[in-house]
Amino acid sequence: MYDDLATVAAAARVAQRRLGSASGQRRTEVLRHLEQLLREREAELLAANKLDIESAEGTGLPEPVFKRLALTSQKLETLRDGIRQLIEADDPIGTIVRATELDDGLNLRQVRAPLGVLLIIFESRPDAVIQIGSLALRAGDAVLMKGGSEALHSNRALTDVLREAVTAAGLDPDVVQNIEGREAVSALLEMDQHIDLVIPRGSNDLVRSIQERSRIPVLGHAAGICQLYIDADADRDKAVRIAVDAKTDYPAVCNAIENLLVHEDFPHLDAVLDALEAEGVQLRGDDAVRTRRANMAAATADDWGTEYGNLTLSVALVDGVDRAVDFIHTHGSAHTEAIVTENPETAARFLNDVDAASVFWNASTRFADGFRYGLGAEVGIATGRIHARGPVGVEGLLTTRWLLEGEGQIAADYGPGKRTFTHRDLS
Amino acid sequence: MYDDLATVAAAARVAQRRLGSASGQRRTEVLRHLEQLLREREAELLAANKLDIESAEGTGLPEPVFKRLALTSQKLETLRDGIRQLIEADDPIGTIVRATELDDGLNLRQVRAPLGVLLIIFESRPDAVIQIGSLALRAGDAVLMKGGSEALHSNRALTDVLREAVTAAGLDPDVVQNIEGREAVSALLEMDQHIDLVIPRGSNDLVRSIQERSRIPVLGHAAGICQLYIDADADRDKAVRIAVDAKTDYPAVCNAIENLLVHEDFPHLDAVLDALEAEGVQLRGDDAVRTRRANMAAATADDWGTEYGNLTLSVALVDGVDRAVDFIHTHGSAHTEAIVTENPETAARFLNDVDAASVFWNASTRFADGFRYGLGAEVGIATGRIHARGPVGVEGLLTTRWLLEGEGQIAADYGPGKRTFTHRDLS
Repeated sequence: MYDDLATVAAAARVAQRRLGSASGQRRTEVLRHLEQLLREREAELLAANKLDIESAEGTGLPEPVFKRLALTSQKLETLRDGIRQLIEADDPIGTIVRATELDDGLNLRQVRAPLGVLLIIFESRPDAVIQIGSLALRAGDAVLMKGGSEALHSNRALTDVLREAVTAAGLDPDVVQNIEGREAVSALLEMDQHIDLVIPRGSNDLVRSIQERSRIPVLGHAAGICQLYIDADADRDKAVRIAVDAKTDYPAVCNAIENLLVHEDFPHLDAVLDALEAEGVQLRGDDAVRTRRANMAAATADDWGTEYGNLTLSVALVDGVDRAVDFIHTHGSAHTEAIVTENPETAARFLNDVDAASVFWNASTRFADGFRYGLGAEVGIATGRIHARGPVGVEGLLTTRWLLEGEGQIAADYGPGKRTFTHRDLS
Repeated sequence: MYDDLATVAAAARVAQRRLGSASGQRRTEVLRHLEQLLREREAELLAANKLDIESAEGTGLPEPVFKRLALTSQKLETLRDGIRQLIEADDPIGTIVRATELDDGLNLRQVRAPLGVLLIIFESRPDAVIQIGSLALRAGDAVLMKGGSEALHSNRALTDVLREAVTAAGLDPDVVQNIEGREAVSALLEMDQHIDLVIPRGSNDLVRSIQERSRIPVLGHAAGICQLYIDADADRDKAVRIAVDAKTDYPAVCNAIENLLVHEDFPHLDAVLDALEAEGVQLRGDDAVRTRRANMAAATADDWGTEYGNLTLSVALVDGVDRAVDFIHTHGSAHTEAIVTENPETAARFLNDVDAASVFWNASTRFADGFRYGLGAEVGIATGRIHARGPVGVEGLLTTRWLLEGEGQIAADYGPGKRTFTHRDLS
């Protein structure tokens, strides 16, 4: 089993190198075939998905899981839309990041290159196969896909379509491989010689467990503990709208807020908290808030570091932006932090001082998302500091290479009393 | 001990945030003080170094280690030179990577930001304290420095100078901390919550041992197995010069070649091999080369994957560029690969197909170096694919943040039948 998987991963590397060194036109052809096949195979794909749905019925899966598991014509159309956007975008491989003349006739270019072999681990949403697969193919990367077992038939059918699109463009289909079984994942997580990056999409527990089990870099985030700070100089209406949106628009996702910080001199505290409660938000407060608000539950020390993922929200009063920033650095997960204020100096201070992947002024934390940022699709949101940070699109699936073209120059010709480098910027 | 180190690392994070959110002017001031202190304290620094040299005498350290251990006026002047270059370069923090209008009055910027807290582990060269320290301070990062025990006095004196420069600019000196003892390193390597990146500078064994012991990302390379491919259409003189330079200019460093691949139709094989032997290179060959060259030692299977670090070189004949690329992907460490040819199509194929950090045409592999690439100094050469790749300067010590400025926009206002994003490129 382990040997087989090493062979699978090694085959992915060989196939990836062919995909990555092919022309951009060829990679675009893959995407064109993919878009077409998703249209032609719609009935088959929906039939495969129906098998998964039928197996799942009666197993007591919660309703939202069913919704995520189901493929529909509309979901497939959305996926084709995303692929068409990738087709229209320029092929990123080989584009120049930096160009420098080192000396007469000795020119250096740093160019974008595929990242390599990715291991994608996701839970029930089978559309992730196509979303992430198409981004990876655009970036010239290979993908080993491990989906949830409840989407087995859907995942097989969708990876088959991806492989067929690659074959139709004259490339090696082993750039896409469907992986099944938890043991397979455990074995793959140890193969840092074959796999360059792991991208887990799913619960925080899934992400944390992968981070703990593998030496391979993991792109993602284990927690989304986001804060909204309402400054003393905040506009009442903006504060209410943003607080409600940031908490209630989609409480289960990572860019919803868990803690609300309010300046003690903000005059409309009740307006904000009333609006939240009217939307069903359960408030918990620190001592200062609770002296102003009768019948509010007390927040415990644990609350400030908890990602509720539901309509619970903890509220604390602070005496200014510095205290808000301290709170964020102490309790936040460096995902997305926002301030509401009409004072540009306070906003500038917040934007400058907060150490997080995304920092917003007078906008809802819910905008932290690859599609909304204009990155096309996203493979996830990264809160680590190495490589990509924040919402990650195609760029996060790329690395660079340095290409140097000379006329026979050697290093021994340079140095004190010899030739000197010109280091002229050519970009 | 472990608790103390966690406190040290946490203090570095707090101090780093102050350094990173300070103005670029302030960080430049740190570097100015550093340059001045290195001048003023020269006598003290040389005296501290003398203590290390005296302790080392009689311990049987090899001559090259002594040379690396010794600080001299000239080395200090070179360090000050590097700092002056960093002072003249623009402060990188906050510079815009990407700017997008998401909608009227909703503007997104991706800006460069400090990476965070670095753990630097290096062997006997004490000048690395200042080289890496000044790069890190320019990038707004904190550094925990663990140098070789034989340079104890030098490292203490140099980190003191770094700390004093930070204090003189009104910032928290805990951004620079001197770490001593192997146990301390072991404990720090487990603190992935406090440390963002480990940069080992030293032997391959040191790098490998750190990669195996830590979950923290490691920037560096465990092996430098570089190849030179001489094509059938190579110019004789360029082939000779580049082969000799790539092998003999500095055989101990990572960008020297270990394997020479020669096209079987290249007519000047003997000229190249004679020139190498004249410089003292010990050749080992595959069967094909040995039929053409009497008395040549045979290369074993292990030879092709060995980083000799001395004047040994393995030579193989190949039947074309594809075979050369295969060899490189099989035996190389993705560090630096070069081709000599006058045929631009063959060169283009090599530059396109070789999957390595640096790929050269008609230039010596010895150019793979941060100073030669015009990056200022370098913290090392990275052969990983995540984050920085190839020679790494200040840019590799940075990450990004996303800043969004709005006028009260909320996510619920966007979607089918509602507002749409403009996604206009502002950069």
